[in-house]
Amino acid sequence: MGLLEKIHGPRDLRTLNSSELKILAQEIRQEMIEVVSKNGGHLAPNLGVVELTLALHRVFDSPQDKIVWDVGHQTYVHKLITGRLSRFKTIRQYKGLSGFPKRGESPHDSFETGHSSTSISAAVGFAKARDVLQEKHHVVAVIGDGAMTGGMAYEALNHAGHSETNVIVVLNDNEMSISPNVGAMSTYLNRLRTDPMYDKRKEDLEYLLKRIPGIGNQVAKLASKAKDSLKYLLVPGLLFEELGFTYLGPIDGHDQALVEEVLEQAKNKKCPVLVHVVTRKGKGYKPAEENPDIFHGIGPFDAETGKVTKKPAPPTYTAVFGDTLCKLARENSQIVAITAAMAGGTGLNKFAGEFPERFFDVGIAEQHAITFAAGLAFGGLKPVVAIYSSFYQRAYDQVLHDVCLQNANVVLAIDRAGVVGDDGPTHHGVFDISFLRIIPNLVFMAPKDENELRHMLYTAIKHNGPVALRYPRSAGQGVVLDERLAEIPIGKAEVMRDGRDITLIGVGLTVHTCLLAAQELRHLGVDAAVINLRYINPLDRNVLSHYARLTKKIITVEDHSLKGGMGSAILEFLEEEGINGVAVERLGYPGFVDQGPIPQLFMAHGLSVKGIVKAVERLKPFRRVAPSQDGSAS
Amino acid sequence: MGLLEKIHGPRDLRTLNSSELKILAQEIRQEMIEVVSKNGGHLAPNLGVVELTLALHRVFDSPQDKIVWDVGHQTYVHKLITGRLSRFKTIRQYKGLSGFPKRGESPHDSFETGHSSTSISAAVGFAKARDVLQEKHHVVAVIGDGAMTGGMAYEALNHAGHSETNVIVVLNDNEMSISPNVGAMSTYLNRLRTDPMYDKRKEDLEYLLKRIPGIGNQVAKLASKAKDSLKYLLVPGLLFEELGFTYLGPIDGHDQALVEEVLEQAKNKKCPVLVHVVTRKGKGYKPAEENPDIFHGIGPFDAETGKVTKKPAPPTYTAVFGDTLCKLARENSQIVAITAAMAGGTGLNKFAGEFPERFFDVGIAEQHAITFAAGLAFGGLKPVVAIYSSFYQRAYDQVLHDVCLQNANVVLAIDRAGVVGDDGPTHHGVFDISFLRIIPNLVFMAPKDENELRHMLYTAIKHNGPVALRYPRSAGQGVVLDERLAEIPIGKAEVMRDGRDITLIGVGLTVHTCLLAAQELRHLGVDAAVINLRYINPLDRNVLSHYARLTKKIITVEDHSLKGGMGSAILEFLEEEGINGVAVERLGYPGFVDQGPIPQLFMAHGLSVKGIVKAVERLKPFRRVAPSQDGSAS
Repeated sequence: MGLLEKIHGPRDLRTLNSSELKILAQEIRQEMIEVVSKNGGHLAPNLGVVELTLALHRVFDSPQDKIVWDVGHQTYVHKLITGRLSRFKTIRQYKGLSGFPKRGESPHDSFETGHSSTSISAAVGFAKARDVLQEKHHVVAVIGDGAMTGGMAYEALNHAGHSETNVIVVLNDNEMSISPNVGAMSTYLNRLRTDPMYDKRKEDLEYLLKRIPGIGNQVAKLASKAKDSLKYLLVPGLLFEELGFTYLGPIDGHDQALVEEVLEQAKNKKCPVLVHVVTRKGKGYKPAEENPDIFHGIGPFDAETGKVTKKPAPPTYTAVFGDTLCKLARENSQIVAITAAMAGGTGLNKFAGEFPERFFDVGIAEQHAITFAAGLAFGGLKPVVAIYSSFYQRAYDQVLHDVCLQNANVVLAIDRAGVVGDDGPTHHGVFDISFLRIIPNLVFMAPKDENELRHMLYTAIKHNGPVALRYPRSAGQGVVLDERLAEIPIGKAEVMRDGRDITLIGVGLTVHTCLLAAQELRHLGVDAAVINLRYINPLDRNVLSHYARLTKKIITVEDHSLKGGMGSAILEFLEEEGINGVAVERLGYPGFVDQGPIPQLFMAHGLSVKGIVKAVERLKPFRRVAPSQDGSAS
Repeated sequence: MGLLEKIHGPRDLRTLNSSELKILAQEIRQEMIEVVSKNGGHLAPNLGVVELTLALHRVFDSPQDKIVWDVGHQTYVHKLITGRLSRFKTIRQYKGLSGFPKRGESPHDSFETGHSSTSISAAVGFAKARDVLQEKHHVVAVIGDGAMTGGMAYEALNHAGHSETNVIVVLNDNEMSISPNVGAMSTYLNRLRTDPMYDKRKEDLEYLLKRIPGIGNQVAKLASKAKDSLKYLLVPGLLFEELGFTYLGPIDGHDQALVEEVLEQAKNKKCPVLVHVVTRKGKGYKPAEENPDIFHGIGPFDAETGKVTKKPAPPTYTAVFGDTLCKLARENSQIVAITAAMAGGTGLNKFAGEFPERFFDVGIAEQHAITFAAGLAFGGLKPVVAIYSSFYQRAYDQVLHDVCLQNANVVLAIDRAGVVGDDGPTHHGVFDISFLRIIPNLVFMAPKDENELRHMLYTAIKHNGPVALRYPRSAGQGVVLDERLAEIPIGKAEVMRDGRDITLIGVGLTVHTCLLAAQELRHLGVDAAVINLRYINPLDRNVLSHYARLTKKIITVEDHSLKGGMGSAILEFLEEEGINGVAVERLGYPGFVDQGPIPQLFMAHGLSVKGIVKAVERLKPFRRVAPSQDGSAS
């Protein structure tokens, strides 16, 4: 580890010669493989951008020049060479370095990212601020070809291309986002990469063209726009040129000298420039090159062999969802499934394999995914969209305006609901209850375990109207999976345990914690009822009313934000029913949640037996203090 | 009114000859001008699509064939010829026809729209459902050039272009959305329209090309892709062709026979097709042709002269916002303003005129607008984004993930908050409190009148961090506007009236209603305190705590949904403070709200003096029944 340790900031890179840079790249790859094999993380994307990152930091002068990293999971190299080597071992750990850019970590992290397709917007913002303030620095957005399928990136290109100011978009084209890319843009980029003419750069082609006498003139007679057209005829990137960008590329992103040369060209233009760089995900580490999807975001693995430690049973909620949907789809040919570039992550790859004609991967395009689903529904099908909780924030209007206002028959599967662990605040799904439960017409459910998930999915498919179904990232509870599926009546809660002193209301996986807490409370002489809410919309007014009046004390427990969450729905319910004098204590998250292991995050926020017992103590005194009889479910 | 009355459905159009069609078009324009001059509505867009709509309904067989209208405010012609002539006079009125497509109104309204850029997604959904179900009908999306700036449209093009199925996108290019268009796509479309080659259609050009010997071959030697390239060289619409569409056009959208001919071509393709139709907004009515922006969406006017009845004083909140921002910007050169294609609607046109370098219209691209603003903020400026409440639903993730998680210095002005009247449920801004108040770090305020709006905007500009500021569509209260602006301490409510029996909490314009209700209540012997909440985030815990404990009864009044709204925030507050035994009654909307005059909508939902008095009666008995002394503010 000779060279890397001497790099305290980007300036230290500029004195290195090309063979030193090669050694440094090697050391960086080594360090990343070592740390990620222990901590997990986004390995393949980072292995792919080693040379690109070094080139960017040699050509541009961060932090004066602004580099905005789209999605931001490819910033490990950037972190290593901007003074964070010594803390790199803590990446993605509780209180450690983030796996994404964080302004608080370094002045070199100019803009925080996490969700896809934001970088060009931010870069145009930096560029316009520079122009208004009459400053002189450069602004670069680094965006993957996957993120280019997001409509927001196009909105920003459309603005930038019209703006006549220098903003540099580096299109890091590794031919896949997480799963292989889909869509016309992907096909287009593929044509750019593979066309035999496209290994020539624009300047060469223009030079070549000029040397062939006659042709230019003859064709010029055909069309008044011939001059431009002839350039287009031979020059790639017309689509971007039409949008107002000067297109440079495609170039080999692992040829660092070439990348630096082209970035220098881009730097000297007075207009928006798109630099098309082709890289290989997982570059330099064979297991990752061979399985870039597995090594995209990965848990701990054996650095030597690349073998991933098998995930322990029980199966995840995600896997159970995927299997159950396949089972249902075998019996119901109207079921179709939609993912926004997350076939693997959402457990839909099995469905995709079994029902290719009924499976749609629309790219990183959550907005389109939802409205497309509404169209499918009105066209006579039963679409199931699976998207992560925090990405539903991207399709909020579409859920409200296109699905629920029209009462479209769409099932919204909300994966990764609740805290997700190491990815941290950009990816925790801790707002969906609040922003979705307020939408009229939407039935909203959450299963206490993976078996109930199966019955709920079955119920959702049967239901006529929009349904949302939220479930967490984690492994299931390990319960037995019923073979025969049954409908769970809409709006019916489950009383898990009767009790007279206090009511614990759980939703999703917190139901289990409530049950454990009730056992503990029994030893303390408190007889707690436990309710598995099941339906956030509509609420089970009978059950809630009964236990509110009976116990006069309620604790709500949710793996979710407090504001507007499930507990808040209970408060609204009590007000609507005019049930006064009930003491309520809500457990959940008070704001954004840090990264860290899920159990640790639960502990830190009182979503634990201990936390519930403490909350119960705050609601003392109880009517009865003698140890209660066993309260069996009513 | 001879012909139009005989048209009971699209089939009746097909027997008409070309001169009859001309007369029909004339009658339709007449009818629309007459009704809209009384009811208000989107006149100019509808005048522009008369021939296009007739052509669509002659070439396609609705409702078997699906026509999806983007935004949907251009469906008046469609409504007139699909059996709704007799009800057309009720358009946009309470319980009348909607100004947008509604599935409940007619089987010809295949998909409901209102917000921009959704039509291609829905159409791809219909097309894929057709393919899965092995049906045969056609699917058409009709989208304006303005709506094409929305990223969602691009997401859908990207999917459709890759799908190899017949979906027809009619690009209705009238060279403006509401304000003149911006962005690179707009420039591109302009090139298509104005290039001398572009008056030829593709077939003609290919024919022409084939007849010029030699050229094709010579250029073919230059590049292996020459065949395609030569086509591109002469054929417009390459950008769409690159995205997988067959491009037809541009054609004159008022030449109905030509439009029908090209639509027939499109119908017979086996691939995605984009038909580029150029129309003129306001066509056939001189005042609207000359002022298409004014006649885009308009109130009642004189049909003869086109003169709009001047809007009555007092000035709207929107106008006061625009004026105040200009005043502040004169003193603070860091202030910049951003609109998403609504410079006029948001009152920013004055700012645009005075500070052109500091004004950004990004097109119908709310997502980009917000993240762009975050970039501007970190670049050293103080951006103020003005967007309508219901369109913030389009930028939810950007507000949460790009602005608030990073604590960016952005002011989010929320215009059209609360019910907006005749545009109805797609445009009412009745969810923003619920979905925005739950976001950490966001200061969230609402002024009781237009004068307080000024002070709040001043406060927001001074504040370091994200601020949201919501205000309604309506005219102000007519209060005096203070010349000198002062900060309103963050999180400080205003006690408008002291009282001991009950607390009325208003937010925004409902504060005024609460005050009037308090006067009425005094006559009934109830001494009501009135609080102008001012800050939804953070709440004024001292004031709320004092009055909750004192009066033990609270009524919350909001021009907003009940679920998760301001009242819900008060319930959460009481729970957090452990203040038990307070009876709360929340007034607001229980779900989606119909179209209708704003005062009528308020009345229907109890947001009135009468409604508040009724709510007070539900909270009886009161401790004191004798008429109280006058309660002056504490």
